[in-house]
Amino acid sequence: MTSSIDRSPAVDTSRAVPAQRSLSALDTISVRLAGVCTAAQVCPRIGSRRYLHAGPPIDLADIPGPMRGALIGGLLLEGEAANAAEAEEIIDAGEVTITPCHDAGAVGAMAGIITPSMPVVVAETEHGHRTFSPLNEGTQGAVRYGSYDEATIKRLHWMGQHMAPVLDEVIRTSDPIDLFSLVAEGLRRGDDCHNRLVATTAAFLVWATPGLLRSNSSRDDVTRVATTIAANGHFALPFTISAAKAAADSAHGVPGSPVVTAMAANGQRFGIRVSGLGDRWFTTASPVGQPVLLDGATMADVNPTMGDSMIAETAGFGAFAMTAAPAITSFVGGNLAQAHKIVADMRTVTTGTSTRLLIPAEDFAGTPLGIDVTRVAARSTEVLINNGLTHREAGRGRVGAGITPIPIEPFAAAAAALAADRPA
Amino acid sequence: MTSSIDRSPAVDTSRAVPAQRSLSALDTISVRLAGVCTAAQVCPRIGSRRYLHAGPPIDLADIPGPMRGALIGGLLLEGEAANAAEAEEIIDAGEVTITPCHDAGAVGAMAGIITPSMPVVVAETEHGHRTFSPLNEGTQGAVRYGSYDEATIKRLHWMGQHMAPVLDEVIRTSDPIDLFSLVAEGLRRGDDCHNRLVATTAAFLVWATPGLLRSNSSRDDVTRVATTIAANGHFALPFTISAAKAAADSAHGVPGSPVVTAMAANGQRFGIRVSGLGDRWFTTASPVGQPVLLDGATMADVNPTMGDSMIAETAGFGAFAMTAAPAITSFVGGNLAQAHKIVADMRTVTTGTSTRLLIPAEDFAGTPLGIDVTRVAARSTEVLINNGLTHREAGRGRVGAGITPIPIEPFAAAAAALAADRPA
Repeated sequence: MTSSIDRSPAVDTSRAVPAQRSLSALDTISVRLAGVCTAAQVCPRIGSRRYLHAGPPIDLADIPGPMRGALIGGLLLEGEAANAAEAEEIIDAGEVTITPCHDAGAVGAMAGIITPSMPVVVAETEHGHRTFSPLNEGTQGAVRYGSYDEATIKRLHWMGQHMAPVLDEVIRTSDPIDLFSLVAEGLRRGDDCHNRLVATTAAFLVWATPGLLRSNSSRDDVTRVATTIAANGHFALPFTISAAKAAADSAHGVPGSPVVTAMAANGQRFGIRVSGLGDRWFTTASPVGQPVLLDGATMADVNPTMGDSMIAETAGFGAFAMTAAPAITSFVGGNLAQAHKIVADMRTVTTGTSTRLLIPAEDFAGTPLGIDVTRVAARSTEVLINNGLTHREAGRGRVGAGITPIPIEPFAAAAAALAADRPA
Repeated sequence: MTSSIDRSPAVDTSRAVPAQRSLSALDTISVRLAGVCTAAQVCPRIGSRRYLHAGPPIDLADIPGPMRGALIGGLLLEGEAANAAEAEEIIDAGEVTITPCHDAGAVGAMAGIITPSMPVVVAETEHGHRTFSPLNEGTQGAVRYGSYDEATIKRLHWMGQHMAPVLDEVIRTSDPIDLFSLVAEGLRRGDDCHNRLVATTAAFLVWATPGLLRSNSSRDDVTRVATTIAANGHFALPFTISAAKAAADSAHGVPGSPVVTAMAANGQRFGIRVSGLGDRWFTTASPVGQPVLLDGATMADVNPTMGDSMIAETAGFGAFAMTAAPAITSFVGGNLAQAHKIVADMRTVTTGTSTRLLIPAEDFAGTPLGIDVTRVAARSTEVLINNGLTHREAGRGRVGAGITPIPIEPFAAAAAALAADRPA
């Protein structure tokens, strides 16, 4: 594989061996779907008024509107507040502790607020390392987009109390499902597996259907589970990003490795973590990009990028597989030529290519894999992500989606930190 | 749309208006899934020892091995024979009448033998015109591939007696499904909808799942129906080709129209029908092509092309949408560059392009639609189809699949017939 490493003078080739170690982990780790349960069941760090949030650390006082909306939703879901006003009092009194999902083995799309009774997908590597991500609520009224109306809370409550046990039963009684195989099949079926997941969701439901039909759960619950999945083209997202997190974790902690193992945003700051640089975040102001907005929305409504779901790009899909998913342009914008340019550009900033995530429309070339901060810095090529965007104000929900370029700054800072660490 | 018509001198432009009428019908007819039942229930022409077969007319004495195998299977299924030897006696005594599927509103993949109790998918146009095609049995042991072993007959019996009623109930109790929307979605998900249908099948199962869960049929039957569909990546084929037949029928009978409305083969002769030339078949020897063979098979084993499923290409998908389905190359051979060449070539022999079957990887260009015999003849460009291939001997089953070029001869003969018909 070393033959694929660029030897141009601007790139720091002394990082080649550790970069390859990270790449190999990202490329080969096996991740299975382990279960669906509540967050409290999988993560002891989540508890009463101790919740998780997306992106790098942020003070409770500084959280943006949609994250505040999600926190209100979480407090309502947990019964900590009887209404939004009571929830806001709790937040304003500083009576909630929030820590980054990434520090607790989790990834949360958008606001990424995870409270004890939220239903989560659990992924597990061949080495027993577990990660998790909240079940996807759809795009209409979702706590992750900052909504907290009654219907949204009621649906999420049902998902935790009824959908999660049904899905967990299906997982326990069905053949194991390898989550990177699910992503690979999604790419063959026109999904990027970050913002287009309609075919991946269908593949998941096909896998789950025999188990759903055999289920001992109530027929009403099983029917609603199937109907809910069938109606939500984003349902597979937590399955793909919990797998991505598991792979990224397995690539983390390689001394000297310049490979990015997390990209995440809290709606104020966008941060990256790098394999060879421990738990340190390198951050920049969250970008907004040029999203495709919903009817009636304006750029003034858009909160800057927020969420952990760009772990997809970190693990070699999402925008890095745009050429596999040309139909996604109706959701995030762009066109086919741009899709080819995006993937070609990403090939210049990654350590190598995936051997299991293949792009049929590029004659089965692997996706670019393993973002190398030294390459991003040397080439000044912006990393691109597909992401959803939410309204600035709490409770207003989704406003659009786009292909967002990430400023060079945190990659350059990380490259400098790596250079400073270098043994003499 | 007339601007897309080629005005080069070799092409007979006097056919432009009737060609456009056929094109418009192919492009705009709405076809819904009407039901699943037994063939006898939908077609009074099918009865005791009166069966249908694929392709242009053929004498019972001349049928090739795999069609003979399918006929043995049909006689066993109907209880006309207790074993294969008895079935062969019936055939050799000429005690079966076979007529082309196309003359009875049907399309049958491969051998296309349709007997009274076989389960069929029924499609219906907005004008109430009905077409049908047998439920797909999978690729391992299927009567359509000429197999007639006990397991194959038993499965087909179960499909007719149990699967068909369950699916019919699902159709009656679910939102209507437009079959060209299903094809269009399949193309967005990497299928050509002729030889790759895995994502289309998943989309169908997602559509059917709520209805399956609500079903009043026995839980065992419903579970087996879902499991059988989930395990058969070709299940959606009769849904897409019955729709294609309905569209092609709607484009048929336009005086002077050079547009092909059927392509079909009986394993000896390959024939086409043309909109302006009535029910006449223009035939040539069935081609073999250069298929991708199953392990252990040789070219000597391959029966020449057989089946009605190239109605897919007639209606603008299959090989005509190869660029939508690059992953199919693992099944039928070829590569991405060839896929682009195939579709580009087909654009030179068609009247126009589909406005609803769009290819994401060609920036949502429509598929080439409406094969014009005068263009095929003038350009000597061979029409290409994706098709399955079966063993020469009865009972041996599938041997491979390929991209098969069809000789110019029948298209040239049809073009000459049209020219002879021309009013002075």
